Amino acid sequence: MPDFRQPTPTNQKPPRLAIIVAGGSGTRMGADRPKQFLLLRGEPVLLHTLRRLAAPALGVAEIVVVLPAEQVSTWQQLCQEFGVSIPHRLVAGGATRWASVKAGLAALKGHAQGLVAVHDGVRPLVSTAVIERTYAAATVHAAAAAAVQPKDSVRLVSPHGSAAQNRQRLRLMQTPQTFEIDLLRRAYAMPELASFTDDATVVDDLCRVQLVDGDYRNLKITTPEDLLVAEALFGTT
Amino acid sequence: MPDFRQPTPTNQKPPRLAIIVAGGSGTRMGADRPKQFLLLRGEPVLLHTLRRLAAPALGVAEIVVVLPAEQVSTWQQLCQEFGVSIPHRLVAGGATRWASVKAGLAALKGHAQGLVAVHDGVRPLVSTAVIERTYAAATVHAAAAAAVQPKDSVRLVSPHGSAAQNRQRLRLMQTPQTFEIDLLRRAYAMPELASFTDDATVVDDLCRVQLVDGDYRNLKITTPEDLLVAEALFGTT
Repeated sequence: MPDFRQPTPTNQKPPRLAIIVAGGSGTRMGADRPKQFLLLRGEPVLLHTLRRLAAPALGVAEIVVVLPAEQVSTWQQLCQEFGVSIPHRLVAGGATRWASVKAGLAALKGHAQGLVAVHDGVRPLVSTAVIERTYAAATVHAAAAAAVQPKDSVRLVSPHGSAAQNRQRLRLMQTPQTFEIDLLRRAYAMPELASFTDDATVVDDLCRVQLVDGDYRNLKITTPEDLLVAEALFGTT
Repeated sequence: MPDFRQPTPTNQKPPRLAIIVAGGSGTRMGADRPKQFLLLRGEPVLLHTLRRLAAPALGVAEIVVVLPAEQVSTWQQLCQEFGVSIPHRLVAGGATRWASVKAGLAALKGHAQGLVAVHDGVRPLVSTAVIERTYAAATVHAAAAAAVQPKDSVRLVSPHGSAAQNRQRLRLMQTPQTFEIDLLRRAYAMPELASFTDDATVVDDLCRVQLVDGDYRNLKITTPEDLLVAEALFGTT
């Protein structure tokens, strides 16, 4: 006789969770404020990003925003100023992206299970379709990340010269990178390595990461020109 | 006693030459015309590209424009319509980019020596600085190409999964790719290979290609979104 108090995992859809990481200080932009707070179409970049993850069609149950400690009050002020009503938990990050994701993960400790999408705060143009693809693939594969094929020819440089690479086998990684929360917890319980450049590299030793189609327009805002590009592409995603 | 009629090569600066290759049919753009003829700030993309290569500071002595045979008359009409006065030789290309560059090279047969920059017709935002760098490096190294480091993490995919790559050792290739004309002639005298994706790969077996800094804004217009991006970046290069 089945125990109705404890539905089996197959009857239950794991909740969708998200961590938005924004660690930039703005120095690389030559701007007066961190790039996540620069205005895109009159609103902070981070607000656009938050809105994309909070799209009702995605059904994300909880969103954590991780910011450097010294930027927490600025974001709170911006939320008031722009009347942000999207529920999210605000967490102070660490010295590296790795430490910030780890802090975001700690804020989700109430969730025994779930799928957590880790997304860059400065990728405000991510489409619902791309986010959905990473959640759907993580449901099946436990780990999934958005990626695109390079448009240009690629070469590998060495002290002796450079050699053409097969670009059809290469992928430029984007976010979201989405994982079963238990898997991501185990990955982040291990020590930080210099080779960690994204969450896929953190998870690599524990699980194969399934790559899904990203979008060329899902750009990361890191230079002043990127903001111009984002303005131009805004309406298309 | 020196022969004043025949200055030695060291006294003579080799002339700067350029081949602009535009082979697109426009089908990939979903547009009604080939992408090189789409309007950017009210003028055909190819006209912008031609103007960049003809910048007086560069001192390019001769420019060849290679177009599919069926587009030659369209370009001639556009030149009339837009009052194009930049001198250039117009050549009908071949079935592949390789065949088109070869046709452009044949049109430069009057030049026993020189440095020839091969540039994509749909890279209208190339800066004078990038073009100059390729000519300068080709003067020293015989072969030079513009390239940038990927901004994103990179993975190599295989049937068994994917593995993180060191992006600091990878380069996304751009144009111009600039060569001593004699070297480029010898390279293009050999049979076409499926592995040719740019001129650097054609020259690879004969000469080490020196990579010089390109520019992230030197984009290749291949999708409708790229045209929006080019509009946004236009004033910055």
